[in-house]
Amino acid sequence: MTTEPAGAGALLAILRDGRARTRTELVRLTGLARSTVTQRLDALADQQWIRPTGDGILSGGRPAVAFSFNSEARTVLAADLGVTHARIAVTDLAGRLLSERSREMKITEGPEHVLGRLVDEFTDLLTEVGRTLADVCGVGIGLPGPVEHASGRPVNPPIMPGWDGFDVPGWLSSRLGAPVLVDNDVNIMALGEHWAANPEMGHLLFVKVGTGIGCGIITEHRLHRGAQGSAGDIGHIRVVEAENEPCRCGNTGCLEAVAGGGALAARLRDAGLDASDGRDVVSLVRAGNPTAIQLVRQAGRNIGDVLAALVNFFDPGVIIIGGDISEAGEHLLAGVREVVYSRSLPLATQHLSIQGRQLDDRAGVIGAAVMVIEHTLSPEAVDRAIAASDPQEPASA
Amino acid sequence: MTTEPAGAGALLAILRDGRARTRTELVRLTGLARSTVTQRLDALADQQWIRPTGDGILSGGRPAVAFSFNSEARTVLAADLGVTHARIAVTDLAGRLLSERSREMKITEGPEHVLGRLVDEFTDLLTEVGRTLADVCGVGIGLPGPVEHASGRPVNPPIMPGWDGFDVPGWLSSRLGAPVLVDNDVNIMALGEHWAANPEMGHLLFVKVGTGIGCGIITEHRLHRGAQGSAGDIGHIRVVEAENEPCRCGNTGCLEAVAGGGALAARLRDAGLDASDGRDVVSLVRAGNPTAIQLVRQAGRNIGDVLAALVNFFDPGVIIIGGDISEAGEHLLAGVREVVYSRSLPLATQHLSIQGRQLDDRAGVIGAAVMVIEHTLSPEAVDRAIAASDPQEPASA
Repeated sequence: MTTEPAGAGALLAILRDGRARTRTELVRLTGLARSTVTQRLDALADQQWIRPTGDGILSGGRPAVAFSFNSEARTVLAADLGVTHARIAVTDLAGRLLSERSREMKITEGPEHVLGRLVDEFTDLLTEVGRTLADVCGVGIGLPGPVEHASGRPVNPPIMPGWDGFDVPGWLSSRLGAPVLVDNDVNIMALGEHWAANPEMGHLLFVKVGTGIGCGIITEHRLHRGAQGSAGDIGHIRVVEAENEPCRCGNTGCLEAVAGGGALAARLRDAGLDASDGRDVVSLVRAGNPTAIQLVRQAGRNIGDVLAALVNFFDPGVIIIGGDISEAGEHLLAGVREVVYSRSLPLATQHLSIQGRQLDDRAGVIGAAVMVIEHTLSPEAVDRAIAASDPQEPASA
Repeated sequence: MTTEPAGAGALLAILRDGRARTRTELVRLTGLARSTVTQRLDALADQQWIRPTGDGILSGGRPAVAFSFNSEARTVLAADLGVTHARIAVTDLAGRLLSERSREMKITEGPEHVLGRLVDEFTDLLTEVGRTLADVCGVGIGLPGPVEHASGRPVNPPIMPGWDGFDVPGWLSSRLGAPVLVDNDVNIMALGEHWAANPEMGHLLFVKVGTGIGCGIITEHRLHRGAQGSAGDIGHIRVVEAENEPCRCGNTGCLEAVAGGGALAARLRDAGLDASDGRDVVSLVRAGNPTAIQLVRQAGRNIGDVLAALVNFFDPGVIIIGGDISEAGEHLLAGVREVVYSRSLPLATQHLSIQGRQLDDRAGVIGAAVMVIEHTLSPEAVDRAIAASDPQEPASA
C-alpha cells in the first residue's frame, strides 16, 4: 500500500541532510502531532538511525533536545566486479569509504568461485574496520554485463560464462544475511559519479568506453532503467563508419564494433602493432604512437556521432566519459567534443559540459554503495523495517 | 522551503483517485492528528476542492462523514495552437472536455492578434458552459515552436514571426486573471496521449511527424524537458540518407530534411506531382499514388533509424507516432516498425509497442489541460493557495 506521507521514514529523510533538529522543529516541519513525532523519533532511535546531539542527553527517559542522522548506524558492503579484477569496499550510510581494496578476480571463473571469494574479502574487510555482519544493512554488486535489476540475475551476459540467470542475491544473502542489490557496472558508475561529483545536476549521462560501450542515465537525480531495464545500451547503435562491420550482437555497424576496446586493438593489429585489448591501446597512446592516437581520436568522433543524437533527444547537463579507453588521456574526449559541439543543437550544447570521470576507478564501488543506501533509507524501507522490528507498531495497511 | 509532508495538498492528492474517504480513514492513512486532518479538510472544503459525499450532510457546522475530490471546483482553459489552426477547450479538473472548438488561426499573424482572438474564444466558451473567469484556475497553451518552459516565452521559433521572447503568460494572465503555462505542441501532445491512453506506462515517446519532427518524452510518468528544456528535438539528428541535404537549422543531413512534411512535398514536386506541404502528401497517399506511398514508407524508415538508436538508449515501453504525416495511414508506421524491430536490441523491443496516436487531434489540447491540472493540484500549489487565501493559516516557513 501507499507509504504514510509523514511516517518515520519521512522524518529520517528530513534529517539525512546532516542538520540536527529539535522535536519542536520537526512538529512544525511535518504538521504531525507532537506525540506522533516523539513516537517516531523513538522508533528511529531504537534502530539507531538517529542520535541525540548538542546539549541533548537522555535523562529520565525523556528524548534529548536535538536529533541528527547517524550515518554510522549501519554498514554497507559494495563490490564492483570487472572482467579481470574487482574493487571491494565497506562504507557507512553516507557513502564514506571505511576501507577498500582491489583484487585480481576473473569473472570467467564463474559465479560460485567469484562470489565465494567476495564473501571472504567482505568478511575480512569487516574485521579490519571492527564491524560484523550484524551491522550490514545491504550489499551492492556491480557486474560487467546486463542484469535484470528486479531479480538481480544476469541476463545473457556475453562475457560471463556460467552467470546467465544465476541468483546472485540469493547466493550472497544466504551467506551474508543481508539484502543484496545487483546492477550492471555502467549504472553503478553513473550513480557514483552523480553522487560524488555532480549531485546538483539532475540530468547526467555516464559513458563507459571499455571492451563494450554503455551509458548510465540519470534523470531527476535517479537512474533511468527503462521499461525493460535495458536503457543505456548505446554500444549497439548503428554508426555510419561501421556500416559493414560485424558485431558480437549479431547485427552489423554497431558503435562497439568500431570504437570499443576490442575493435581498436584489432585495428592496431591490422596496422602491424602489438595490441590484444583496450589496455594495450591505452599503452600505445601513452607511448605516443601516432596510429593509436589517431584511432582513439576517431573512436571519440564515432562515439560523438551517437552522443550528438542523444544530446538533441535527452538534453543532459553533463556527459562524463569513463572506462578503460578514457585513460588514454584527452584524445578520446577531444573526438567526442568535436562532433557533439558541431552536430548537436546550440540550445542543448550551450551549457553542456563533456568531461572526464571525477572518481577514478572508485565510481563503481561507490555507486554500488549509493544504490544500497538509497534503498535502505527510502521512507518506505525505513517504515517497513520499523514495523517489522516492533510487533506493537502496526504496519500501515 | 520544503512542502509539509502531509499538508492539505497531500490530503488532496490522496483523494484525487476519486474515492471518498472518512476522516477516520484519513487519520489512519496519514498518521496526522485528528484535529489536523479536520483543519485541513476544512481548508480544502473552503476552496471547494473537496465535497462531502455519501450520507454526509453538513449539520451544525460538523463535517460530513466522507469527503471526495470535487473535479468541478475549478475550470481549465486550454489551447493547442498550430501553424494555421487552433483547438480551444474548457475542461474540469479531471481533464474532461466541457466544451471545445477548432478555429482557423494563423500563427504568423503575431502574438497579439492570435492571443487576442484566443481570449475572445475562451470567454465565449466559458459563457457556453455557464462558467466565468473567476472559476478558472489556469490556462494551458501549446505553441508550434520551442518554448522556455519556466518563463513561457518562445525561443527563436523558426515559423512564428514576432513571437521570439514574447511574454505569452504575462499577456494572457493580465487579461484572463489566471496563471498561464506554455509548452511546445509536442510536449503537450505527449502529456495528452500518456494521460488518456497509456496512464500505466511509465516510459513513453510521442513522435510528431509534421512540417517539423519532434518528440515528447515521458519518464516515470512525467515530462522530461532536459537540462536546457530542449529535450526531444529529434528532427535535427543526422541520418545517413540525408547526408548532404541542407536543413533550415543550418546543418546538413537532419532527419527533418529528409522525412519532414516539407521535404516530402519537395520530393513529390521533383517527381512532377502537385504538393505544397505535408497535407498534400497525405492526400496523394490516400489517393493511392505509388510515389507518395513509397516516399512516406521511406520517411518511416528514416525516422525508424533515429528511433532505433533512441530505443537502445531510452528503452521506452510505448512509442506513439502522431502529427499530420501520420494521417497517411499505416505506411509511415510500417516503415518505422520495419527498422526499429530489425535494428534495436531484442531485449528493448521484446515488449515495445509502436502505435498510432489514440487521441486524434485532441491530444494537444487535452495535454495542455493536464499540464495545468498537475500544476494546480500539486501538493505544494494547494498548500500555497490555502495559505494565501487564509491569513490565519500561517504559510509553512
